[in-house]
Amino acid sequence: MAEKVTIYDISKKLNISAATVSRALNNNPKISQKTRELVLKTAAKMNYKQNRLAQALKSGRTNNVGVIVPFINRSFFSSVIRGIEEELSPHGYHVIICQSHEDVDNEIKQIDTLLNTQVDGIFMSVAKTTQDTSHIQKALAENTPLVFFDRKKDVPGLSSVIIDDFKGGYLATQHLIKQGCKKIAHFSGDLSVEIYKNRHQGYLKALKDHGITPLSRFSLQVNSKLESGISAVKELWEFEEKPDAIFSASDYAALGAIQELRKIGIKIPKEVCVVGFSNEPFTKYMELPITSVDQTPFEMGKIAAQVFLEQIESQILTAEKKVVLAPELYIRDSSNRNL
Amino acid sequence: MAEKVTIYDISKKLNISAATVSRALNNNPKISQKTRELVLKTAAKMNYKQNRLAQALKSGRTNNVGVIVPFINRSFFSSVIRGIEEELSPHGYHVIICQSHEDVDNEIKQIDTLLNTQVDGIFMSVAKTTQDTSHIQKALAENTPLVFFDRKKDVPGLSSVIIDDFKGGYLATQHLIKQGCKKIAHFSGDLSVEIYKNRHQGYLKALKDHGITPLSRFSLQVNSKLESGISAVKELWEFEEKPDAIFSASDYAALGAIQELRKIGIKIPKEVCVVGFSNEPFTKYMELPITSVDQTPFEMGKIAAQVFLEQIESQILTAEKKVVLAPELYIRDSSNRNL
Repeated sequence: MAEKVTIYDISKKLNISAATVSRALNNNPKISQKTRELVLKTAAKMNYKQNRLAQALKSGRTNNVGVIVPFINRSFFSSVIRGIEEELSPHGYHVIICQSHEDVDNEIKQIDTLLNTQVDGIFMSVAKTTQDTSHIQKALAENTPLVFFDRKKDVPGLSSVIIDDFKGGYLATQHLIKQGCKKIAHFSGDLSVEIYKNRHQGYLKALKDHGITPLSRFSLQVNSKLESGISAVKELWEFEEKPDAIFSASDYAALGAIQELRKIGIKIPKEVCVVGFSNEPFTKYMELPITSVDQTPFEMGKIAAQVFLEQIESQILTAEKKVVLAPELYIRDSSNRNL
Repeated sequence: MAEKVTIYDISKKLNISAATVSRALNNNPKISQKTRELVLKTAAKMNYKQNRLAQALKSGRTNNVGVIVPFINRSFFSSVIRGIEEELSPHGYHVIICQSHEDVDNEIKQIDTLLNTQVDGIFMSVAKTTQDTSHIQKALAENTPLVFFDRKKDVPGLSSVIIDDFKGGYLATQHLIKQGCKKIAHFSGDLSVEIYKNRHQGYLKALKDHGITPLSRFSLQVNSKLESGISAVKELWEFEEKPDAIFSASDYAALGAIQELRKIGIKIPKEVCVVGFSNEPFTKYMELPITSVDQTPFEMGKIAAQVFLEQIESQILTAEKKVVLAPELYIRDSSNRNL
């Protein structure tokens, strides 16, 4: 690649001082019109690339913000990003996105990348594997506001916008009980992750409030993958006592469950009701649309952006704001016995 | 927000020259161990943020590359990005992503953002509305390699990795003819966009090669949205002569078409066969899985990354390389009459 042209190269070429070149490039009134034009022309000819970032640093703003998500191809995350963009775009901010693929090592590098590119703020939904938070505290140490959404860590001084996952789990389970279901299985996801733990707690509380004793065999830790939903149904159906409902903390596992249940000839929702979580678009596209808990991702993104703007405007970078949004249950054919 | 601490602030605090501070921070051996430690300690205490980017610029690399896509929430684009990441990650590159939402104004800002953050390269699939290419030529002018994927513009000196959309259109149409279909409608997308034009040309050529005269009323420009597919079927079914197949240049419109056809009681694939394009994951999740043309996005991303690496390694930034990949037809129930 060609060597980068510096103001020293231009000064050498024109036999004038580097300071004069710099002043000319920055429209300093001390420099004559003639010299300025000569410098600009020479700079253009030599393909000089002014370090606009260094200039932005002088004003303290780059107008870029970074978003780190586990995956961009989950509708939930792409909708949050859309909310952030819609809220920040009128304020002149540009959004750059990184995906961690649930790998804390990627996350560490991405925080570095974003801090190195001098973003004005970071929005982040942490990877499932993230335990230690020193990379996140780095942003705080560098005076870069960081706002968590959906999946947070408890770091003093950092704000978060999440949904009430406990309530989501409660709503879904309560709905199944109202359909007449009494043997409700739960596909939980990794219970060391806060959101899954809370959904699971909501499920248990709803059962308890309706006098149903939870069967521990009915709670399975299932990945948010179609294949994992299929395996989980196979596992459950090996026993004599079968569930009459499945509440899955993931839409993909719910879809796998439905495919497997249909394959073994079980009628949905008559024999088994199924509810998912996240309201992925495909849930409503299916010939048998899937009931799901909506996490209002677009609003989540907008509110996270508002929290960031407040911090920037108030110049208080450690304002710890905790926003909790209410989830909504979208009842569809996969669990609706009153059709 | 707090003012940024500079080396001048540190030099004032310690009453030593800024040059000494700078040398100490950069581990210059001219500086005594004692002074270096004092400077580092003071810098840390004052929360000094070293401009690591400026340092990266000295070496000419930031190890960041940017990707601009119309949308992150289309499986095709997120899979291309995954391919780019997998290929570049072992080389130490980090990928930052921007979405244009099919808006050329966003694209212009994003090219600026990426050039300002001094990325080492840009990967780009242009917005449908993009006509003028001066913002793209800017990357070329700044010696930043840019590689197009899927949707390209003909800019001298820039490389591209695309699929053979003509072949994709041909394969899909030929398959429908082999199923016995003779009245094949086509949902084309905006024909001023190269990829859609080529798919349409492939459709016309396949008809011609099999002695079928295309009906112009059967070619509709349909958005890649579910609702647009529904409207298009309504429009087609107003006429006496109905199609016996639909080849849609988008999976979303194909899905809409299927929903509407089932609603009006038409049997798929017996009465009407349907084929989509892009092989979005939902096409295989459906109870009636949808035939679709796969664009090998993961491979496309990997190859685009290889083209970039070759340019960086050869130091030739204007190597115009044109890669065309072959699409694959995934035949599923929505068009398979031989089940």
